[in-house]
Amino acid sequence: MMQLVRVHNFTVSSDGYAAGEGQSLERPFGHADPGVLFSWAAATASWSLRTDPGGSRGLDDYLVREFDRNIGAEIMGRNKFGPQRGPWVNDEWQGWWGEEPPFHTPVFVMTHHERPSFTLADTTFHFVSGDPATVLELALAAADGKDVRLGGGANTIRQFLDADLIDTLHVAVAPVELGAGSRLWSSPEELLDRYHCDVVPSHGGVVHHLYWRR
Amino acid sequence: MMQLVRVHNFTVSSDGYAAGEGQSLERPFGHADPGVLFSWAAATASWSLRTDPGGSRGLDDYLVREFDRNIGAEIMGRNKFGPQRGPWVNDEWQGWWGEEPPFHTPVFVMTHHERPSFTLADTTFHFVSGDPATVLELALAAADGKDVRLGGGANTIRQFLDADLIDTLHVAVAPVELGAGSRLWSSPEELLDRYHCDVVPSHGGVVHHLYWRR
Repeated sequence: MMQLVRVHNFTVSSDGYAAGEGQSLERPFGHADPGVLFSWAAATASWSLRTDPGGSRGLDDYLVREFDRNIGAEIMGRNKFGPQRGPWVNDEWQGWWGEEPPFHTPVFVMTHHERPSFTLADTTFHFVSGDPATVLELALAAADGKDVRLGGGANTIRQFLDADLIDTLHVAVAPVELGAGSRLWSSPEELLDRYHCDVVPSHGGVVHHLYWRR
Repeated sequence: MMQLVRVHNFTVSSDGYAAGEGQSLERPFGHADPGVLFSWAAATASWSLRTDPGGSRGLDDYLVREFDRNIGAEIMGRNKFGPQRGPWVNDEWQGWWGEEPPFHTPVFVMTHHERPSFTLADTTFHFVSGDPATVLELALAAADGKDVRLGGGANTIRQFLDADLIDTLHVAVAPVELGAGSRLWSSPEELLDRYHCDVVPSHGGVVHHLYWRR
């Protein structure tokens, strides 16, 4: 069985931004309101950060559930892992996700700055440098035959797209404009030369774009 | 975690029939052409009966993949299991699916006629009588905390709907009329008093109906 590299539930504004300007500890998505970007996913029964029972089980939920199906490792950019930039001041920061991160696999954080691995519950974070192909090799080996999820942010996904390393992408386009920030694309059509795409409007207010290789 | 009772990839004609009249060994779907009913699913990468690589990975594939996610047992009607009706003539018939059935869990076949259980690869078929609630209790226990898939046919799903035992249904409506046979409903709207529904047209030619309890 071939291992795939997959992007899931990655949400961008109508003008292609996954986060706004001025990202910080207080505002992880900068001037963007994550409540607006992710309301479609937060309403579903399978949302990994859901704490109460309930939630919808329609189209949005089918897509959200793919987050952990047959995933053996995640790759994320350093800017998704935390608000710090440049060399690590100390090792106190352990991500946004508390004592039980929703990944449940090895996570490879791409950074030029060394830092020891650490484990929270069943998630181990490794800090690795190198180009996308090099980091992907590590993640595929750690995934033990399962697929690798590419978790973002936009810059990281752009690097992997430019290196042609992504097999499938699910990008949700939210009905909000951001104007500036961390950008995935100018238009969803940019990928159509290399990917098939199903465009599926959702009652949750977003339009799902489901890409797979031609 | 609550165990759910789920229907997946159940395909009916535009007038609500899941199979035609005159079901037999040679024509499992009677006068209906299964190639027409299931072409949307057979085109996907995740179709459980796929033998060659390839296949689409868009919307239809996301839905097809749900077939075995977190499923611990299946319940099916006796008419899905095989073409025989009435008492078992002998125990030679072991289903349509060859030496490696695509279920990979216990399967409970509802029948009034006794027959010993048997195992093919990692699928064990049990033959059970009783009303839907009684059979469901057996399946839930065998599923070991996972969900139960209700596999059909139409008459079996109708019985479980009438007993209000189904949590979610995915029904694909194909663009073909059958006029007679084994019928699920007159219209997809019949279930709206009890279920929410997302209606999602697919490039594969069917319209997906995704129901979950109100």
